[in-house]
Amino acid sequence: MAGPATYFDPARKDELDPATRALVARRERALGTAYRLFYDEPLQPVRGLGTKVWDADGTEYLDAYNNVPSVGHAHPRVVAAIAEQAATLNTHTRYLQEGILDYAEQVLETLPASIETMMFACTGSEANDLALRIAKHVTGGTGVVVTTNAYHGVTTEIAAISPSLGGMESLAPWVRMVDTANLAGVGAAFDELQAAGVKPAAFIVDTILASDGVIPSINNLVDAVAATRDRGALFIADEVQPGFGRLGHGMWGFDRYGLSPDLVTVGKPMANGHPVAAVMARRELTEAFGRSVRYFNTFGGNTVSIAAAQATLDVLRDEGLIENARVIGERLLGQLNGIDSPLIAEVRGAGLFIGVTLERDGRPATAETLAVVNELRRRRVLLAASGVGNNILKIRPPLPFDAGDSDRLVTELQRALALHA
Amino acid sequence: MAGPATYFDPARKDELDPATRALVARRERALGTAYRLFYDEPLQPVRGLGTKVWDADGTEYLDAYNNVPSVGHAHPRVVAAIAEQAATLNTHTRYLQEGILDYAEQVLETLPASIETMMFACTGSEANDLALRIAKHVTGGTGVVVTTNAYHGVTTEIAAISPSLGGMESLAPWVRMVDTANLAGVGAAFDELQAAGVKPAAFIVDTILASDGVIPSINNLVDAVAATRDRGALFIADEVQPGFGRLGHGMWGFDRYGLSPDLVTVGKPMANGHPVAAVMARRELTEAFGRSVRYFNTFGGNTVSIAAAQATLDVLRDEGLIENARVIGERLLGQLNGIDSPLIAEVRGAGLFIGVTLERDGRPATAETLAVVNELRRRRVLLAASGVGNNILKIRPPLPFDAGDSDRLVTELQRALALHA
Repeated sequence: MAGPATYFDPARKDELDPATRALVARRERALGTAYRLFYDEPLQPVRGLGTKVWDADGTEYLDAYNNVPSVGHAHPRVVAAIAEQAATLNTHTRYLQEGILDYAEQVLETLPASIETMMFACTGSEANDLALRIAKHVTGGTGVVVTTNAYHGVTTEIAAISPSLGGMESLAPWVRMVDTANLAGVGAAFDELQAAGVKPAAFIVDTILASDGVIPSINNLVDAVAATRDRGALFIADEVQPGFGRLGHGMWGFDRYGLSPDLVTVGKPMANGHPVAAVMARRELTEAFGRSVRYFNTFGGNTVSIAAAQATLDVLRDEGLIENARVIGERLLGQLNGIDSPLIAEVRGAGLFIGVTLERDGRPATAETLAVVNELRRRRVLLAASGVGNNILKIRPPLPFDAGDSDRLVTELQRALALHA
Repeated sequence: MAGPATYFDPARKDELDPATRALVARRERALGTAYRLFYDEPLQPVRGLGTKVWDADGTEYLDAYNNVPSVGHAHPRVVAAIAEQAATLNTHTRYLQEGILDYAEQVLETLPASIETMMFACTGSEANDLALRIAKHVTGGTGVVVTTNAYHGVTTEIAAISPSLGGMESLAPWVRMVDTANLAGVGAAFDELQAAGVKPAAFIVDTILASDGVIPSINNLVDAVAATRDRGALFIADEVQPGFGRLGHGMWGFDRYGLSPDLVTVGKPMANGHPVAAVMARRELTEAFGRSVRYFNTFGGNTVSIAAAQATLDVLRDEGLIENARVIGERLLGQLNGIDSPLIAEVRGAGLFIGVTLERDGRPATAETLAVVNELRRRRVLLAASGVGNNILKIRPPLPFDAGDSDRLVTELQRALALHA
């Protein structure tokens, strides 16, 4: 299976410097071959702060890619919260804890009033797995509709609804795909499932369509949700990528469409890298699920995870990072639109989630995108590619990205594009 | 669905003191009803150290239950490692990291030579999900054999092979159960699957049979593994509970049977409560999987998780905790066997994983077990119940449990048994 263009090709190990080659060889030996590394020359970061990371040689890089350390690498308030709680107690949800209630209540306040409960897991994959399990339980159906290049996670169940993973893990027979350019086909997809004897359960969508190429304005999303509900299925908003303010407009990607999902899933940026995730849902859904299923996730919502998530939420608010995402994101969009390069076909985004599509003669410029990403790595700016054709630069930095960071990214991108135009 | 006896019954909320009642009500409101709390009077621990925790009133409890903080609550070396790495960098496996290689190499050294690769996830559920995904991929089969009251996790796929969860989440049609008392039926279970057109994929077993009631000496396990392999299926050792030295004899539960599993899964105690888990496997399995599937778990094996896991492994060795589990475990077994109570039908265990079966007139004493667990909580000793009949006291403390802790547990247990005999 061909991975996205920006992965290191193990066949080219001999081109690496001896120290990197030795690490890559140890890695293949101990971790096996299902793992991938970024870049032609894999990077070994050893330190991070804010929007920067440093490699083992002390070289500094601008991080325009990592959305997990959302409030900035090694944010001191998040670090302090983790250290303090780990030194005090780390335990689970079968004991009473006040922190988890304080946190859940604050997050639920940011959601539509119809979403009243929050359940904790450790990863976005687990959150989507649980959300779908609830949806199937409540509807009694199994049919799921996803977008063409959707990625929702790596559990067996969720890999089976993630066409972007491809290979044998491809779609389960109870899944149908709809074109991201126009979701008007969702109703028909459910009808097709029903004609095949599969009762509808859920339509799940990442509201920035990250793996589909970063699409800030999704056509027909509201109609697609209505068509979903007409057929008795539930709408799951996968906010693992757009959630927690990255789009610079409120906390959630679906807010921009005036939608009220049935279930909302979150993960990656929730605790700035500490493994925690969650499903928020309408009360009647979790009640119906809870009547016949007890749920316990040993680490999910443990006291240290909650301390990390609370500190991350506090920083997001106190440092005005959603507003920063909006202001710097708009500025960066303008700068990117101003770049004069024959490769750039489109620049689009919301907040600090931006896609830049590269084309040559109207066709995806996959090789050039690969070259630009690797050139930027040499120029000490970290980015990656996205989309079905791997021809979309994915810009998704930590949210404290500032005007200077933005200028530096644009300058280096201009040079990299010029070299490969 | 009836949960195990030691869960709090929400219908009895009005019997609680006002502060606890308020927290329970907030919890139901914010987290929904699928979550369970321990005990008739739910506990609110706020601090822990070693084998003790303290509640909000400053009352101290002996923890004879929690296996996750395996090297002791809030162990200073683990806390320091987490704090230091979180302040330095927390990033993922698509960059090179030396720590993850050092750690994986050390863990792999403790395993049979045929197990050469290690892949990281965040929870035991994810690890079992990945192990089964690999097994299905490599064998081309889907048939799975589990024990009667097995629990392997909560993803959709793994809930479907976990009969202990019951309810609608019960077994998938490609799963068969075998009696834990005698695993001679594993071959026949695979044959039954094959007769139904289901190709064998895996036999998965927790090598201490924790949810089946703590069984330190499993009949016919070696033959069951041979029967599994005869049919082209793989043997997955679920070491989430027995692993990392809890049984007081080497690192792994399967060691005691001289077995070499095809895949080994770990979780809970791996990083003393930090969410990390892993699958270790024969190289040809991960190679075959890696040829068509790329695997990435955003948080799995991140730098902070690895620092926590490394510190936990260091403490396990430096403080001789496996030897302590053996010595104190044997001493405790002797003390428990010396208790004169008509309720005790059997005491059994390995290291610091001990089960005490309570019976009345040859039948499971479920009500008495519930009463004893709740009485012990009032006497400031934390335990729980296990087994199909919820009549087995599960003793599974942090590994630094010492002779004084053991004496205290036995003294309080004698009193609690006397009250309910």
